[in-house]
Amino acid sequence: MKNFADRLNKAIDEKNSVVCVGLDPRLDMIPEFIKNNCRKENDDVWQAAAESVLEFNKGIIDAIFDLVPVIKPQIAFYEVLGSEGIRVYIETIKYAKSKGLLVIADAKRNDIDRTAEAYAQAFLGKVNLFGNEETVFDADAVTVTPYLGFDGIKPFIEQCKKFGKGIFVLVKTSNKSSGDLQDRYVQDEKMCNYELMAHFVESWGNDEIGESGYSSVGAVVGATYPEEAKKLRKLMPQSIFLVPGYGAQGGGAADCKPAFNSEKRGAIVNNSRGIIFAYKKRDDLIEKDYAKAARDAVIIMNEDLSVMF
Amino acid sequence: MKNFADRLNKAIDEKNSVVCVGLDPRLDMIPEFIKNNCRKENDDVWQAAAESVLEFNKGIIDAIFDLVPVIKPQIAFYEVLGSEGIRVYIETIKYAKSKGLLVIADAKRNDIDRTAEAYAQAFLGKVNLFGNEETVFDADAVTVTPYLGFDGIKPFIEQCKKFGKGIFVLVKTSNKSSGDLQDRYVQDEKMCNYELMAHFVESWGNDEIGESGYSSVGAVVGATYPEEAKKLRKLMPQSIFLVPGYGAQGGGAADCKPAFNSEKRGAIVNNSRGIIFAYKKRDDLIEKDYAKAARDAVIIMNEDLSVMF
Repeated sequence: MKNFADRLNKAIDEKNSVVCVGLDPRLDMIPEFIKNNCRKENDDVWQAAAESVLEFNKGIIDAIFDLVPVIKPQIAFYEVLGSEGIRVYIETIKYAKSKGLLVIADAKRNDIDRTAEAYAQAFLGKVNLFGNEETVFDADAVTVTPYLGFDGIKPFIEQCKKFGKGIFVLVKTSNKSSGDLQDRYVQDEKMCNYELMAHFVESWGNDEIGESGYSSVGAVVGATYPEEAKKLRKLMPQSIFLVPGYGAQGGGAADCKPAFNSEKRGAIVNNSRGIIFAYKKRDDLIEKDYAKAARDAVIIMNEDLSVMF
Repeated sequence: MKNFADRLNKAIDEKNSVVCVGLDPRLDMIPEFIKNNCRKENDDVWQAAAESVLEFNKGIIDAIFDLVPVIKPQIAFYEVLGSEGIRVYIETIKYAKSKGLLVIADAKRNDIDRTAEAYAQAFLGKVNLFGNEETVFDADAVTVTPYLGFDGIKPFIEQCKKFGKGIFVLVKTSNKSSGDLQDRYVQDEKMCNYELMAHFVESWGNDEIGESGYSSVGAVVGATYPEEAKKLRKLMPQSIFLVPGYGAQGGGAADCKPAFNSEKRGAIVNNSRGIIFAYKKRDDLIEKDYAKAARDAVIIMNEDLSVMF
């Protein structure tokens, strides 16, 4: 089973892009023509909403699949549509993969023992149903939260090993209050909690290093904290950083640079709203052109991130 | 909208019980006769698996609803069954509520901004679908993870306020490696991370205190760390503790006692496997009597927790 980090680095090279497109399909932001069509075709409002999301996503994927290595659908926006939402979450992942994209399930899951194993099987592995081994979400990687310590991470790493998958562990997040816990100085270790976590992530990933020299155990490091990213880059030389916070949250290309080891190595930069809802800021386009607006936004972002090196 | 802490305390009084039954329906542990029936009735293996879970759950709920105030279905075991799993998760919550039980969705969700808001709407609030305000999971409370700081908690508290719901924030978890992060001594604050988190939880809950004197912002504090629970009880006098770790994980009634302020106030004690799969340890019963075994286990646990005071 090919190592996830190797698969991601190969895709980065092939697409010549380090952009990750976040598929966060908030229903109120989806073009009206899609929602109207889906409402007409579905009596059930849950199905109508879920189909709106799926049609929107397919339009985005069709428009950007040749330009980026990876997408990151945020499961909260699907979970809020109940079982129908989960159905189209699975459909979205399947469709993206059929177009050659890698998929990071942004789920920030966490638990221990058999419970974490169930999550890991759901997102990365397989489940045994009456003797049939079936994939569930079948993402290439999933984001995880480390508050529970190693017990909560190990079951995910086991599925990574088994199926060539990856995880991204929250280390230093992009939000304003990320320091509430993450920035606290830990006395005995002479470092902050987020640095402590970086040491853990580096060690957890030791057995998952591929031919490209990177581990399938990656880290989430926000673009909104470039100084911290610089420190973390040194503490986790073998981890790929998933960098949120570019664009809408205020991070620019220069803020992303410290997350990289070199051009195209060591990080991918996510943008959700700034790409998928780019049509909202284009006076020159109608909403039917939302996918073209997304493609244009990706081209600009690819350029923005390549000129910084 | 009645405060969640008040609703929980009222249910504790009415049932004269502080037991929370964890509905963690691992497919491999569900009685064969249920799975065989559901397999016969459903061509689709996902439906067959999900219906097995639902039938199992209903049997458990029917057997214990008059004995306990609250159940806690762990969503990982439903998510691993895909969209069908989520469908029966919702059905299980609905059924439990129809029997007068409160429901804590054990999901340990966490994210920021609009994403956390989507999760909070899914578990506690409502979603707007083409002008219709619909509940999604409609649990009474949900467990949440605090690694992201207050940004990740606030959207949940907003739904608590709006709909009389509650949250339980992970503070000191029951697992062996919970100390990896939680036990680190934070220099400037002269306390450990879990104590720091306790201070946050106490302050986050200040606006959500009900007539019973307890807040709808509760804390997860494992039975496996009674010394820590003692300290935390003092740091969070107004929080209700959700206590995992009793039974299979090694905690006994005496270990749970420090989590309480007094008999029946300040904590609920969860037991999952020890109740729902009690039939596996009963040589005197056949598997068709799994629900009776669960009822017997609840009666013993209710007794075990009441004699310690």
